Amino acid sequence: MNINYIEAWNMLNSMDNILLITHSNPDGDAVGSIFALYGILKKLGKNVRCEIKDIPAVMQMLVREDAFCDFREDFVVSVDLADPQLMMNDIKARYSDKVDLSIDHHETNVTYAKNTLLKADAAAACEVIFNMVSEAGFEIDTEIARCLYVGLATDTGCFRYANTTASTLRVAASLIEKGVESAKINTDIFETKSRAYVMFETMAMNSLRTYLDGKCAVLLITKDMYTKANITESESQGINALPRQIEGVLAGVTVKERTNGTYKISIRSREPLNASEICALMGGGGHRLAAGCELSGTAQSVINTVVKFVKQAIEEL
Amino acid sequence: MNINYIEAWNMLNSMDNILLITHSNPDGDAVGSIFALYGILKKLGKNVRCEIKDIPAVMQMLVREDAFCDFREDFVVSVDLADPQLMMNDIKARYSDKVDLSIDHHETNVTYAKNTLLKADAAAACEVIFNMVSEAGFEIDTEIARCLYVGLATDTGCFRYANTTASTLRVAASLIEKGVESAKINTDIFETKSRAYVMFETMAMNSLRTYLDGKCAVLLITKDMYTKANITESESQGINALPRQIEGVLAGVTVKERTNGTYKISIRSREPLNASEICALMGGGGHRLAAGCELSGTAQSVINTVVKFVKQAIEEL
Repeated sequence: MNINYIEAWNMLNSMDNILLITHSNPDGDAVGSIFALYGILKKLGKNVRCEIKDIPAVMQMLVREDAFCDFREDFVVSVDLADPQLMMNDIKARYSDKVDLSIDHHETNVTYAKNTLLKADAAAACEVIFNMVSEAGFEIDTEIARCLYVGLATDTGCFRYANTTASTLRVAASLIEKGVESAKINTDIFETKSRAYVMFETMAMNSLRTYLDGKCAVLLITKDMYTKANITESESQGINALPRQIEGVLAGVTVKERTNGTYKISIRSREPLNASEICALMGGGGHRLAAGCELSGTAQSVINTVVKFVKQAIEEL
Repeated sequence: MNINYIEAWNMLNSMDNILLITHSNPDGDAVGSIFALYGILKKLGKNVRCEIKDIPAVMQMLVREDAFCDFREDFVVSVDLADPQLMMNDIKARYSDKVDLSIDHHETNVTYAKNTLLKADAAAACEVIFNMVSEAGFEIDTEIARCLYVGLATDTGCFRYANTTASTLRVAASLIEKGVESAKINTDIFETKSRAYVMFETMAMNSLRTYLDGKCAVLLITKDMYTKANITESESQGINALPRQIEGVLAGVTVKERTNGTYKISIRSREPLNASEICALMGGGGHRLAAGCELSGTAQSVINTVVKFVKQAIEEL
């Protein structure tokens, strides 16, 4: 059943022994919304615990150590969770059909919970939680505000993306007035790169080549770049976003050398080019604007193959 | 004389044949504030013209073609200009002691104008202009709002920097409600780089050196980099943000070669380091976390000087 802010608030007030859950591989909105709601419910005098793992290092400052106690819950609340399939595996087995209240902002929410507070025009679950407590007249403290700010900032790319509304910005303003040190948080999350990553990025940028009159930009990442910069492939993911940022590029390609002459290809495209269709032709797949595949050969033969398929796709536009 | 919003507004209303000027190498706040004020004064039925050059390509959409007409001005207004020394050269000769009203947000404003509307807690001159017209009850249109948004977004790094206050975010919210397509502007300004800029950035990154156990990172931009990448100095401003992004860096320094052995220094600092104090010791100034100065000598002697003052400031923390 879909419920409104006050119904959700009254429901939370009437319950006790509450378990909070969110999605696996939690991002800033998952971490922010779970610990914000934890803080709110503790202030209401509730017995509350959280089930969450793999919290990114940069968000550790939101973690409440007392949130991992052990008791048998009477009420299960999910935050920022559109689908039980996205729960952590051990949570999924126990709770996929046992969520009492889902607080969410994904329009794709599959309404799996007994009660759903869904605001699809909110940029983040944190925005939904802020609006709920505001409507209820509940005063948050700096610690709760900090959690909500992190969720809001990460889900909007620090207020850059199209989901940032006037309302989002006003919520952020209220959180700053609650004492959130927003600039420090923004710097930590959005403006800080390790020295190893900067070194890696510089080497990657030096490999940049453009093809097809600048419509296709290719970075070639060799194994020795990881070694020289002392960085793992998973720490290097951010690099995939770079080639598409160049003006006029429709396909931003990153070719990453693996062992035994294989290469991992990432294609980020701009509308109307469909990266997923191009990668499918090379045995891969993904999303419309971000897809991947694997190829074998020499670096140059792999690049030639990718550029050939990109060319074909651009000609078909 | 320092005047308030309404006094400045009444002054603008009482004058005609108005010339608007700003600083050389205009950034988003200079371009945004000059064309916002132009639009406002045109709506008031005034005869207005602008003197501005070297507008970055990405801000061309704010330019009003009718702003470059020719008439003899009776009233000179500067926006986002802390010091007449920062005027374009040909403007400086004619107007350094002839500014009637300065609308600014730099706490370092040298109060060179007959009247000064200075709000040092505003993130941008555009925020000052918005607050002035709001207090006066003047309704802006989408075109003016777009100019103000660009100024606000660029001076705050799209609402990331420490100068972003609750008030800044509420102004941005109001501008979005005026119809500004903020997500598209953010993509164009913050997520898109020209091929020339990417080439320039790669060369700049290759020049990166760190000092003081990684607390000071320095980029050295030589004149031939501008030539090779085919980019102007004003198009290269974004580079100043890079060195501070490296983990552990307190002072991110960019040293840009100019003509005749002079170098333009930009220092971006992290708390608690005060970039403005460091630059003041070298004859410059600016904001606490972003300041600049000019030095003469060889590249290495200039870097040595900057690193020496940074070292001293770090030791005094």
